[in-house]
Amino acid sequence: MTERDNQSMSPIEVRALCRNGSLTGATSGFAKGRVQANMMIVPREYAFDFLLFCQRNPKPCPLVEVLDPGQFAPRCTEDGDVRTDLPGYRIFENGKLVREVEHISEYWRDDLVTFLIGCSFSFESALIEGGIPLRHVDEGKNVAMYKTNMPCWSAGRFNGNMVVSMRPVKSGHVARAVEISGRFPQVHGAPVHIGHPALIGIADLSSPGFGDPVHIFGDELPVFWACGVTPQYVAEQSRIPFCISHSPGKMLVTDLMTS
Amino acid sequence: MTERDNQSMSPIEVRALCRNGSLTGATSGFAKGRVQANMMIVPREYAFDFLLFCQRNPKPCPLVEVLDPGQFAPRCTEDGDVRTDLPGYRIFENGKLVREVEHISEYWRDDLVTFLIGCSFSFESALIEGGIPLRHVDEGKNVAMYKTNMPCWSAGRFNGNMVVSMRPVKSGHVARAVEISGRFPQVHGAPVHIGHPALIGIADLSSPGFGDPVHIFGDELPVFWACGVTPQYVAEQSRIPFCISHSPGKMLVTDLMTS
Repeated sequence: MTERDNQSMSPIEVRALCRNGSLTGATSGFAKGRVQANMMIVPREYAFDFLLFCQRNPKPCPLVEVLDPGQFAPRCTEDGDVRTDLPGYRIFENGKLVREVEHISEYWRDDLVTFLIGCSFSFESALIEGGIPLRHVDEGKNVAMYKTNMPCWSAGRFNGNMVVSMRPVKSGHVARAVEISGRFPQVHGAPVHIGHPALIGIADLSSPGFGDPVHIFGDELPVFWACGVTPQYVAEQSRIPFCISHSPGKMLVTDLMTS
Repeated sequence: MTERDNQSMSPIEVRALCRNGSLTGATSGFAKGRVQANMMIVPREYAFDFLLFCQRNPKPCPLVEVLDPGQFAPRCTEDGDVRTDLPGYRIFENGKLVREVEHISEYWRDDLVTFLIGCSFSFESALIEGGIPLRHVDEGKNVAMYKTNMPCWSAGRFNGNMVVSMRPVKSGHVARAVEISGRFPQVHGAPVHIGHPALIGIADLSSPGFGDPVHIFGDELPVFWACGVTPQYVAEQSRIPFCISHSPGKMLVTDLMTS
């Protein structure tokens, strides 16, 4: 498959590839123009706390859709099933990642509540069209994501620091990158930090917490956006007894248009 | 007190007047430039369903703040107390309005969750500054509100139709009224209907469900905005065992600026 093939694929086709096990990698660059979503699934018992966490932290957790307890067919897809239609999932127990799996049908329970959360892939094409090349896209990598020391607003049991994604941007383009991404508040919006990773608790850009590192050239600044991987990091920090998330970079491709 | 006195009052002063029982009427026109909020209080047991209802129905229920269970001091006020700082409250049992009271301290329980919801008063000054006079403001009345046949998205136990507020607008100004209010998505945003009340289930504009009727002249159209009274109407329709709301028109005046 070429990059162009991936881009021109329909969301239904992408989800079918996940469902039959053919697509197990990152979804960046697939089904151009469609909203991709991070996912977090928690038991009903924790659903109010987590929904409140999202309401209080709209930058890392902009909600695309929240499903009813036990429901697995999101409205933002024609035929979707959150149990099978992502390339990979992570199972957490008491805040520990215990398993990474391709489908979660065998873990499904009637009390599970699924949260779909906006993803920065949705503004990446706008950045590229705005003349801001993205290194991880050019190099076919997963975007680099880092754990920070920036606290989220807590809500009930959910309490912890933010995860950010990083893209190197030429210093002359940084203002434009802020303006363009700021137009997408439903997918993390404008950056949360620019330029000094140590100030937000990132010691070493070459060792991301998730995804792949990319090189930063001398005329570039690292630009950091709030990231939808935050919920799984917060679930870890809060030792939530049971939850399921997508694997970082492996999103649900929805039918919604980014524009 | 003159209208100008009311406008120039600080939010703290308005809340103090409510607290000591001096202000028991509508808050429209008080503390100009400050965000006013509708309120809905439900037991923890129903809090996830109601938060989900708000997430799914952002036009009638744009969230300003959700307090932790049992908490009564909102972050959007310096010294506020949701139990005393509104001019009037309504107590609902099994969907029936059973009491209208000035304070709710004696009804307070540790499991109550308070939701503050944006209010169209926040865009009214922008409409007036945009050259669109508001009859209920000119006549010192509470805005007219109507029950409609427009269904909200349901969420768990919460299921029912929308309440709208109505303002007569000269037909030549309707487009501008849409544009101006559309800039305030956090307070109901653009109108949900213009011109034909019968089409949204309103038989008689002279008998509003809440607030005061106003006359509509021949060169005007009735313009309808989603209204933060919707949650109490939905709680009625859904026969929620217990909840507390503000009395229509009697809002919490917050410290937040509308701009």
